[in-house]
Amino acid sequence: MSQHIIYSNQVDATLSAVIEGGNYHNVAVLVDQNTRQHVLPMLASSLEKAMVIEIPAGDEHKTLNSLISVWEALESCGATRQSLLVNLGGGMVTDLGGLAAATFKRGIACVNVPTTLLGAVDAAVGGKTGINFMGLKNEIGTFAPARHVIISTCFFSTLRHEDILSGYAEMLKHAILNSCHEFTALLDQDLNATDSDHLLERLKASVKLKEDIVNKDPTEQGLRKALNLGHTVGHALESHALETGSPVAHGYAVAWGLVVETVLSHMILGFPSDDLYALASFVKQNYGAPSVTCEHYDRLIALMRHDKKSAAGEINCTLLRQCGEPTINNKIDVDSLQSALDIMRDLLGV
Amino acid sequence: MSQHIIYSNQVDATLSAVIEGGNYHNVAVLVDQNTRQHVLPMLASSLEKAMVIEIPAGDEHKTLNSLISVWEALESCGATRQSLLVNLGGGMVTDLGGLAAATFKRGIACVNVPTTLLGAVDAAVGGKTGINFMGLKNEIGTFAPARHVIISTCFFSTLRHEDILSGYAEMLKHAILNSCHEFTALLDQDLNATDSDHLLERLKASVKLKEDIVNKDPTEQGLRKALNLGHTVGHALESHALETGSPVAHGYAVAWGLVVETVLSHMILGFPSDDLYALASFVKQNYGAPSVTCEHYDRLIALMRHDKKSAAGEINCTLLRQCGEPTINNKIDVDSLQSALDIMRDLLGV
Repeated sequence: MSQHIIYSNQVDATLSAVIEGGNYHNVAVLVDQNTRQHVLPMLASSLEKAMVIEIPAGDEHKTLNSLISVWEALESCGATRQSLLVNLGGGMVTDLGGLAAATFKRGIACVNVPTTLLGAVDAAVGGKTGINFMGLKNEIGTFAPARHVIISTCFFSTLRHEDILSGYAEMLKHAILNSCHEFTALLDQDLNATDSDHLLERLKASVKLKEDIVNKDPTEQGLRKALNLGHTVGHALESHALETGSPVAHGYAVAWGLVVETVLSHMILGFPSDDLYALASFVKQNYGAPSVTCEHYDRLIALMRHDKKSAAGEINCTLLRQCGEPTINNKIDVDSLQSALDIMRDLLGV
Repeated sequence: MSQHIIYSNQVDATLSAVIEGGNYHNVAVLVDQNTRQHVLPMLASSLEKAMVIEIPAGDEHKTLNSLISVWEALESCGATRQSLLVNLGGGMVTDLGGLAAATFKRGIACVNVPTTLLGAVDAAVGGKTGINFMGLKNEIGTFAPARHVIISTCFFSTLRHEDILSGYAEMLKHAILNSCHEFTALLDQDLNATDSDHLLERLKASVKLKEDIVNKDPTEQGLRKALNLGHTVGHALESHALETGSPVAHGYAVAWGLVVETVLSHMILGFPSDDLYALASFVKQNYGAPSVTCEHYDRLIALMRHDKKSAAGEINCTLLRQCGEPTINNKIDVDSLQSALDIMRDLLGV
């Protein structure tokens, strides 16, 4: 998977070099209202001549209609197969822009410039693109790596604390997949006093772990499924929150999903209870708890059965024997899942 | 590009073996009205349990709306990442179904069973998928090879003579790219008296040539562009015919496009005039001529500038020094193109 990750806080200069080095016919940049206002002006030199394509912000606009509007804009700005699309935004922009680039004229080059911690640690790396469809997250998409990903912490200062937390949940996931050492380092961090240099170091370690896994299994035949830790339950919590009119940030759902799947890991594979309690305590303190009662369990389980990671109606999770020892393709029965949801609600004090 | 091509006139048994060998969760088959009526009953054993998804026949339905209906049908029949989509039809079905499979849940397996000569020789092999968008052919798509392609001549007996001719134009293109020998063999064929065994032999040679080129350059960075011979002009003629309310079969437009681009090859690279006349004579006799006058040239040229193969408004063609010696990326000026269109109209007796 030929994707070049560049760490730089001189994003304007770095992007200029990337554009000049690519000999592109022309350049378009995809933004949402937020990144147009707050980030695009910081890239005035590199994107001076770029056609600006704007889509509405928010996961509720990660839709086919937004995708069509990007295709139409590429068409109307005269994009050719040798054009470049720069995706400037969070995971919604890089996922949707990546899919637009992968399918326009059967594929044009794109560069991802993630502007959120979540985007940097997760969506901008690894080649997954997608849009939501029929109420299901990322149901339509491709595996198509960006040519370059420029990762920087210089855009994060404008993020809300909630958005930092959202990205941090994916870093927790990478850490728990990686080692006890990395996991403990993240839990010891005071998230209300994060300095950006320290964050960049942790971010590099986190992205590196994801890259290692993705390079070994780019199309998710096996090992890469480990990166789904927390997401079978997390996606269901996120979809359910959306359905019930109280959407939650992806990372919050992942944090709660991590707790449920770590409970399952404890129940099924003997994951150490100390690490489970440490995780739950950190999540409770920073992310609170999801608004679910046992009346919602049937719907949550139905959503999990529909998850891309599941097959033939079975619920499939990545679990852990201990930190750094994931096992993929665990089939989870409904009783265990209900118990784990109960325990999660106890641990997080719902 | 891991695509397995199987030549077989025992399609039902072959498809059964492919399905059993794949261990798929379930199987869906994409058809249009024609293949549902005439071809699906011939595969009663292999597709007995398959969910049938039908789209309207014809290139005018190779649209985003048809694609959406396939995604929705896959969703409603409970397709998972381990499901199989069988595309049973001509190039429209295999292109659109290939795109649906490539993007549903970020990609499920598909098997192409081309039911037309054109589909067998062209669209079902090589991994190009696509739909028309904003009036442009195959403007949205991916490179995504089918897992298997089952090529047979047993469905061709129900085709109209026009449909045989449409496929034969792509075979002519492959032959002229290959060698004088293959080119002459095809021109010597009486298309009103083709026996299916002979056709299968020629078809194998033709598909083989395409495979060789595609394997060397799956994403069309260089050599594969040679397969665009005839198509820069052909697509423009086809789009123009559609715009003016008199659609023509793809292969007819390609046959005429081949004549124009062979004229350009003669003008620019000294392609032998004897071979040009032989081609033009065969095309005139079998395909007639396009309904264009010099008043249409400006529109045709505008369409060529918009072609995926063109860049920055320049018109780009594959040309030939002689049979078997293509050169890619020739920039064509407007004067030469107008002359070549004039000469084509003379040669074909417009």
